[in-house]
Amino acid sequence: MSEVDLNSDLGESFGPYKMGDDEAMLGLITSANVACGFHGGDPVVMHRTAARALEGRIDIGAHPGFNDLWGFGRRKIVGDSAADIEKMLIYQIAALQGMARAVGHRVTHVKLHGALATLAFDDRDLSEALVRAMRVLDRDLILVSTPHNETERAARRGDIRVACEVFADRLYGDNGLTLPRSEPGAVIHDPAEAAALALRMVDEQAIRTVSGAKVGMPVHTICVHGDNPHGVIIAAAVRAALEGAGIRVRPISELDI
Amino acid sequence: MSEVDLNSDLGESFGPYKMGDDEAMLGLITSANVACGFHGGDPVVMHRTAARALEGRIDIGAHPGFNDLWGFGRRKIVGDSAADIEKMLIYQIAALQGMARAVGHRVTHVKLHGALATLAFDDRDLSEALVRAMRVLDRDLILVSTPHNETERAARRGDIRVACEVFADRLYGDNGLTLPRSEPGAVIHDPAEAAALALRMVDEQAIRTVSGAKVGMPVHTICVHGDNPHGVIIAAAVRAALEGAGIRVRPISELDI
Amino acid sequence: MSEVDLNSDLGESFGPYKMGDDEAMLGLITSANVACGFHGGDPVVMHRTAARALEGRIDIGAHPGFNDLWGFGRRKIVGDSAADIEKMLIYQIAALQGMARAVGHRVTHVKLHGALATLAFDDRDLSEALVRAMRVLDRDLILVSTPHNETERAARRGDIRVACEVFADRLYGDNGLTLPRSEPGAVIHDPAEAAALALRMVDEQAIRTVSGAKVGMPVHTICVHGDNPHGVIIAAAVRAALEGAGIRVRPISELDI
Amino acid sequence: MSEVDLNSDLGESFGPYKMGDDEAMLGLITSANVACGFHGGDPVVMHRTAARALEGRIDIGAHPGFNDLWGFGRRKIVGDSAADIEKMLIYQIAALQGMARAVGHRVTHVKLHGALATLAFDDRDLSEALVRAMRVLDRDLILVSTPHNETERAARRGDIRVACEVFADRLYGDNGLTLPRSEPGAVIHDPAEAAALALRMVDEQAIRTVSGAKVGMPVHTICVHGDNPHGVIIAAAVRAALEGAGIRVRPISELDI
Repeated sequence: MSEVDLNSDLGESFGPYKMGDDEAMLGLITSANVACGFHGGDPVVMHRTAARALEGRIDIGAHPGFNDLWGFGRRKIVGDSAADIEKMLIYQIAALQGMARAVGHRVTHVKLHGALATLAFDDRDLSEALVRAMRVLDRDLILVSTPHNETERAARRGDIRVACEVFADRLYGDNGLTLPRSEPGAVIHDPAEAAALALRMVDEQAIRTVSGAKVGMPVHTICVHGDNPHGVIIAAAVRAALEGAGIRVRPISELDI
Repeated sequence: MSEVDLNSDLGESFGPYKMGDDEAMLGLITSANVACGFHGGDPVVMHRTAARALEGRIDIGAHPGFNDLWGFGRRKIVGDSAADIEKMLIYQIAALQGMARAVGHRVTHVKLHGALATLAFDDRDLSEALVRAMRVLDRDLILVSTPHNETERAARRGDIRVACEVFADRLYGDNGLTLPRSEPGAVIHDPAEAAALALRMVDEQAIRTVSGAKVGMPVHTICVHGDNPHGVIIAAAVRAALEGAGIRVRPISELDI
Repeated sequence: MSEVDLNSDLGESFGPYKMGDDEAMLGLITSANVACGFHGGDPVVMHRTAARALEGRIDIGAHPGFNDLWGFGRRKIVGDSAADIEKMLIYQIAALQGMARAVGHRVTHVKLHGALATLAFDDRDLSEALVRAMRVLDRDLILVSTPHNETERAARRGDIRVACEVFADRLYGDNGLTLPRSEPGAVIHDPAEAAALALRMVDEQAIRTVSGAKVGMPVHTICVHGDNPHGVIIAAAVRAALEGAGIRVRPISELDI
Repeated sequence: MSEVDLNSDLGESFGPYKMGDDEAMLGLITSANVACGFHGGDPVVMHRTAARALEGRIDIGAHPGFNDLWGFGRRKIVGDSAADIEKMLIYQIAALQGMARAVGHRVTHVKLHGALATLAFDDRDLSEALVRAMRVLDRDLILVSTPHNETERAARRGDIRVACEVFADRLYGDNGLTLPRSEPGAVIHDPAEAAALALRMVDEQAIRTVSGAKVGMPVHTICVHGDNPHGVIIAAAVRAALEGAGIRVRPISELDI
């Protein structure tokens, strides 16, 4: 594979509160995962992000999370049925679809945010709720996800395409998931290190876990984080490294998935 | 005109908090204006309301309001630009459109809620923002509104159809708007009185103001309130009176507007 | 022991949304646990509840929960440190203390709400955070809690008095906790049954679990639920049964704890 | 007068969202007005702000606003009675009092935030509600306010001390209020200019309006803004100018008011 997408979670500002440097990131990535007003984002931010993405020929995806602004969607909220979470997902994805339509763009993909994503990896019911929400709104929506878990399996069963995602700035545990941010070394701050990791993952079509194990997977998209203070620098380093190695960086919807 | 729509504002419950008797109202009305999660409602309530409306062959419309659950959208919130309110409206309407799609239904109309509606009546910029939001999402959306104000005029200019609305359980001031709920006598509690008023408005194609003035208008839809304790009884009386007089009660989308 | 307190969780209405029949409950109970605006309640409701409690010579306690109005504090929210939850508790308890002062009343006790209570039972850090919050605000605050768990133990270590609580309308599992509401039979709807249970618990100074086991404990206060549709009827039956048996029903602060 | 307080609105961060550079400001000011969780701030932020203020021997005051995080309390919300706003104020002030107690500090003053302050200047009922809220919680609380308006008059009538406030980084209109931020030139960005203005206001014990009029008033406290990108630089310049001119910069509670 000589091409890959570069994605980032954007549009997480809320009212007067700014999060991340979206303007800079939009100059570096090819797909933006846009917060939908539950864990971050608001209608004005969503609209602006969709409009800027269109200008930059950047794909936009819905990035739905728990309705938990205070916890930024990173707290696990336990107690809703999968059926109720399905409606929360429809609400958020559909709101972004409308915002995309308003600016002449369209939503190409969906990526769960934070604790909701983590819970879904191990929860078949929750993952199937996500797939139902996607199918009912647009069968062509692509799921962006770490593979080898309930979420990917539910998408395969539900005939939803999966863009397999890796993180350039995170270490992986032996369960194939990124280590929690609270663990020492879990977040990579060195741009050169992140760039080298990204290149190797694309080259090997695999991730390496903290113990050195190699887990094969198609590497469709590399996530860089904009809420990390060095996010923009890392993203720039990753993009430069990929392009320097002759790898085409393209939006998710243009990849062969 | 021998036909009219009967509409009500529904889906205003939130999480554990129940508002109104939606089940009963859904057996009496032909169009439901569904709260979209800002002043009331939540994704689960929206989904259920859309599903029940479909079962009952009832039209659903978006009923967007200020993001003010505590004030239930009845407090005037001053400080947002019309352009920002436009995005708040797109968000809410689009979320309901997604919910409708999820149950196999579709959104036929939009009606502003509470203080947002009252502000828009006198605000050309705000009314035009509403019309832009509707046009960009679906040009066939019908605006439900009291006529003879900036909101109706913006819709006419924007080529959006208007279903002129009257209230069966409210008195009108000489400005053509319903009197504030806080004024004595502003809310009609007697079902027979409300039914007689409804019949006369359809018959005369006009409202009567508190001073007796007659204001002509096409009466396309009659609003009955479900959050009023006697709402269901009033709605039943209004419907019975209309049908007893040979007036067909039909969803907004089936009217000749 | 010939006396007991009758408590209920009140003040859970929010803005336009009414929850429970507080007026009726305030005529039956001797201690009110008042929601503090996070999972339910708002400043206006808190003020009114405190004022009515004062009129009825009813103790008021803080009933803090997760900041989760949608989930009504019944969803487990995992991810905050105990130190952060301590601040959430201080905030809520102090807000009610101010409201009590405003009406000439005072806060006598604290009882955790919903999922926060359930989590604390098994979480030493969280229970100690609660006790620190209580101590720093008022060392005379009494903790209302199911005993035999981390919460009670933390209070004992922190020199905070504990009013041991039983539920008249709930079945107990063999772990000494009430069965989840979702389990069949977990909630008792028959007033006579609840009244008999309450009497027996006071008489035996013990609860009986679903398997018949008897768990001894001082029964200081009996909780009746106002959000249960039959709550008022059950509360009336419990109170009548207690008084009929010669047991004095008194506010928590007047008990010998 | 050879002394003055330097105050700033702090503690406006929320969950993951950072607002302003509180750490730096706390090294420059003598009184901090702490957001109370309605328009900004949260229990964790309030606690940290109170603790840092104590370390720096800085007074803390409550800075209550509308419950409008999205609008940051800058949107006018019309529809609540003064009596209801009184409870909102009690709630917020009391919550901060508890937080202060938790760290061993105490709340010395109250300053309304944003649109609530602006509305109160012209609203006798609202201003009296504020004064009642302060009196019932602590009669020694000092009101920080622009003088010559309903808010100051209500405080005088209610026997609440008033610390008259000026802004070093804002222009004044002829009504004695700061010009709206949206007006050109309303916000002063030049540190030297702000410092000179501050000095002159203390020297003259008066403000100058945009048309050059001089409005006499005791200048007890100078507000510098931390949400302004140059806030810290301006605050440093103002403080240096004051101290350079031999004016003592002291906390509100140590002034002779």
